[in-house]
Amino acid sequence: MSVKLGPNRYGKAETRLVHVVREGPVHRVKDVNVSTALSGDMEAVHLTGDNAAVLPTDTQKNTAYAFARKHGVGQIEEFALLLARHFVTSQPTIHHARVEIEEYGWNRAGPHSFVRDGGEVRTCVVHHDRDGGSTVVSGLKDLVVLNTTGSEFHGYLVDEYTTLPPTRDRVLATAVTARWRHIGETASYAQSYEQARQALLDAFAGTHSRSLQQTLYAMGERVLTVCPEICEVRLALPNKHHFAVDLSPFGMDNDNEVFHAADRPYGLIEGGVLRDDAPDAGFAWE
Amino acid sequence: MSVKLGPNRYGKAETRLVHVVREGPVHRVKDVNVSTALSGDMEAVHLTGDNAAVLPTDTQKNTAYAFARKHGVGQIEEFALLLARHFVTSQPTIHHARVEIEEYGWNRAGPHSFVRDGGEVRTCVVHHDRDGGSTVVSGLKDLVVLNTTGSEFHGYLVDEYTTLPPTRDRVLATAVTARWRHIGETASYAQSYEQARQALLDAFAGTHSRSLQQTLYAMGERVLTVCPEICEVRLALPNKHHFAVDLSPFGMDNDNEVFHAADRPYGLIEGGVLRDDAPDAGFAWE
Amino acid sequence: MSVKLGPNRYGKAETRLVHVVREGPVHRVKDVNVSTALSGDMEAVHLTGDNAAVLPTDTQKNTAYAFARKHGVGQIEEFALLLARHFVTSQPTIHHARVEIEEYGWNRAGPHSFVRDGGEVRTCVVHHDRDGGSTVVSGLKDLVVLNTTGSEFHGYLVDEYTTLPPTRDRVLATAVTARWRHIGETASYAQSYEQARQALLDAFAGTHSRSLQQTLYAMGERVLTVCPEICEVRLALPNKHHFAVDLSPFGMDNDNEVFHAADRPYGLIEGGVLRDDAPDAGFAWE
Amino acid sequence: MSVKLGPNRYGKAETRLVHVVREGPVHRVKDVNVSTALSGDMEAVHLTGDNAAVLPTDTQKNTAYAFARKHGVGQIEEFALLLARHFVTSQPTIHHARVEIEEYGWNRAGPHSFVRDGGEVRTCVVHHDRDGGSTVVSGLKDLVVLNTTGSEFHGYLVDEYTTLPPTRDRVLATAVTARWRHIGETASYAQSYEQARQALLDAFAGTHSRSLQQTLYAMGERVLTVCPEICEVRLALPNKHHFAVDLSPFGMDNDNEVFHAADRPYGLIEGGVLRDDAPDAGFAWE
Repeated sequence: MSVKLGPNRYGKAETRLVHVVREGPVHRVKDVNVSTALSGDMEAVHLTGDNAAVLPTDTQKNTAYAFARKHGVGQIEEFALLLARHFVTSQPTIHHARVEIEEYGWNRAGPHSFVRDGGEVRTCVVHHDRDGGSTVVSGLKDLVVLNTTGSEFHGYLVDEYTTLPPTRDRVLATAVTARWRHIGETASYAQSYEQARQALLDAFAGTHSRSLQQTLYAMGERVLTVCPEICEVRLALPNKHHFAVDLSPFGMDNDNEVFHAADRPYGLIEGGVLRDDAPDAGFAWE
Repeated sequence: MSVKLGPNRYGKAETRLVHVVREGPVHRVKDVNVSTALSGDMEAVHLTGDNAAVLPTDTQKNTAYAFARKHGVGQIEEFALLLARHFVTSQPTIHHARVEIEEYGWNRAGPHSFVRDGGEVRTCVVHHDRDGGSTVVSGLKDLVVLNTTGSEFHGYLVDEYTTLPPTRDRVLATAVTARWRHIGETASYAQSYEQARQALLDAFAGTHSRSLQQTLYAMGERVLTVCPEICEVRLALPNKHHFAVDLSPFGMDNDNEVFHAADRPYGLIEGGVLRDDAPDAGFAWE
Repeated sequence: MSVKLGPNRYGKAETRLVHVVREGPVHRVKDVNVSTALSGDMEAVHLTGDNAAVLPTDTQKNTAYAFARKHGVGQIEEFALLLARHFVTSQPTIHHARVEIEEYGWNRAGPHSFVRDGGEVRTCVVHHDRDGGSTVVSGLKDLVVLNTTGSEFHGYLVDEYTTLPPTRDRVLATAVTARWRHIGETASYAQSYEQARQALLDAFAGTHSRSLQQTLYAMGERVLTVCPEICEVRLALPNKHHFAVDLSPFGMDNDNEVFHAADRPYGLIEGGVLRDDAPDAGFAWE
Repeated sequence: MSVKLGPNRYGKAETRLVHVVREGPVHRVKDVNVSTALSGDMEAVHLTGDNAAVLPTDTQKNTAYAFARKHGVGQIEEFALLLARHFVTSQPTIHHARVEIEEYGWNRAGPHSFVRDGGEVRTCVVHHDRDGGSTVVSGLKDLVVLNTTGSEFHGYLVDEYTTLPPTRDRVLATAVTARWRHIGETASYAQSYEQARQALLDAFAGTHSRSLQQTLYAMGERVLTVCPEICEVRLALPNKHHFAVDLSPFGMDNDNEVFHAADRPYGLIEGGVLRDDAPDAGFAWE
């Protein structure tokens, strides 16, 4: 039998790093979760356990902490690029680095006091390759949105297993996971994030929906309209079903007022929108 | 061997109810999780499986939905009292009802569009007893707060297993679970909640802390100061440890700037503050 | 306004401790999660932040590790008693200790290799009080069991909100959380645990059930029958609903063969069984 | 601006289906979680909300239940293939189906009584494409394994951020997620699963490890050695760090006996092993 090593990477996942900026009495805080993954000359370590090409995951963690001290955290895309480039350029055995960061928001409650913003989590995935250069994907997850009306679903395929009645008015709710690919490096990731996030919300709230797919496309298209620095958007939208409860046994109508919010199963709509002239994605989405 | 039935209750847990108020084009939404638990003449069902005294948990769920349609949800304390009293007064075999409700916040994003507020969850536990009347405990959970300075910890007991160095400056972070007992029924639970929540935040941010216990007491005391309708506050505060990373191996200092946010273990501080003249709690905290 | 400190305790929660016994080439492993909570002379720390009576939670964690090295972990009840008594007897300011331990099982896969047993978690809660002595409660959680038949539910109260049809045959499934109180200290906690666990399973599988309450009582009673060292059993049994799917739209019957396993809401049945001559529980269940 | 629809799919996720086989008094149970995802002529629904090509996710759920009644569930790979082929062959607008199933094990406790096996979850992902035919990937997740010795880590790269000391003896623990690609359709998925699972365990327990990468490769290689029907294995192995606690402040040594089991961060080792002559994977891993 003849076998070989396939695609591989290794790293330190979920380094929970909090950076406090203490310039004067009014502090700022950055709260992130850093995951680094490296690949390169890794035949030997897999086949014989020879670690000579391996930068330990513990070192990767240390590097994240040390870089926070040296450079600050700043925009997560920039911090991720710093780390990714450091690993690839400082170690000849490392050809490729993938850095993923989640950022948790905090709202100010005093000069040095903060309340965690429990809403969406900001995300990024950055790659740097010795030959292929860098890619930046930004995004968010856990942005939960709901329209109480303005959503229909009818005109679909009907087969022998179809029992769903068509509807002209339903609740539409989802927990948005969105990722968007930058064409190159973007001047202000902070501004880009705010604009993309607002575009997602505007399109969700502003689209009279005949299917969640239509809403998904509108959300992706809106981001591309508003953000010239972005060339592709990918979305995963679980359809968080809200079922109108049948109250007729109790002599009551229910004109879309009382709902059971179901857990499982849920619809799951995944799709992307990209510019016609979007450059090749390469490894950006890996 | 002679055995007997001990304390018992049964009910429907986690009925996920969303109520949409559609008065005109601008909708409102209430998103709650209702758990009801009943007790009473339950010897027979336990000992012989005779269900004659049992109101099914499915009926309890239906009642929650029907009451939402009939009465609206309104303040969760009031909705819980309605349900609890209904069960006890309508069924002679039910002597006592406990109703617990969680409420998830939503922020407006359009006339019929909403974004889930991912911050704290508002809670209540209401009891109604055929003989003992009603009690109301309000509260919140998952309110995550952090002070970047203004926290010390020193002067503690030292034994042979103590290695912790004293500190004059540390990060203090916790996820607040707070519950507060109303003296009777409160005129405006909405206003009471806002005032209690703000008191918790003010005391957390405003207390120069020498221990998390001191902060806990200050938080409870502040609620009692601000809210005359409340007679007792109970708090559970996990000490979400933020450890300053030792960067000296890399030739760097770390003056409380770069932290590792740890998951487990965590300190857990639990305690209460009550008025000297607080009435007996009875079953309120069960 | 005059207020006072209410009930309180503090400690280190969820110290994840793994103890490897390396006597010879065949190793053994104990995998536990230790939570300690102390109370005593804690007025000063709450009111003024004076920590002189406080043994730090960090020290409590260290003690758990050091005691594992010194004494081994052994039966979790015994390890918990060791820790609880140590804190109370070594520190005059500590009057009471509560120690809770979870144990995760591992199955042998080689002389020094193990596979995590993903089934139920063994638990205990031990108290030691300077004046009131010791109490021991053992238990388990996450023991998920299911009967495909032998369960009925009918003859219950019917009111205007009842729509549930009676049934003579249904699936009955639950995730058992059980705790049982020892009369005193038990000679073999290992044997007691095995017998109690088996009694729970036997009673669940062997009871033709007309309500989950009946099954609950049978489970508790069986433990008391089999285990003379135990005086009280408390159970929390979520009714994990399995709904037979209506396949009639597809021209199919469904004689309790195809089920939807629902998440929420769920019935929740809580209750206890105790000996007529059970000693007073004191603080055992806190 | 000119944009277009990118890759997309939609379906019903996490249909929790329990099938009871009631042939005689001794029942059997299959407990699965089915997720279906379809793609095809989906331009219109995204761009205009025209649902004419869309088979509702509700219908997909119904089909899973109806097929369980009609065909039984049997091996999850076969059930997934049945569903995938049904969707593609019955609807001209559906070109491709992906079906993912998780199976939860139950151990017998009586003729109609079962205890949930809390260990690993069996998984499969099946694709069927109108033009590209079928692919089958089997697997497991949450198989948690631990070696108390026989693991080293040294000889790795050292840079300015490296503080980790080399070790000749450490605990090695991981939660295995493994997936393996079948060359075609396999005669007995049950037997194949048992052999692959055992090969993973044997290689984990039997490999004296100098890195987790070496163990990963050995695990994949072992599956390929034992299972001629499999052409590729992919593994994700979190390094569940067990840190020996420093007990020297208490005058104790700690020769790998007492460990702190850490949550985060964790190493994450991902990699694959494949036959030199493995056919092209196509969409199998999507």
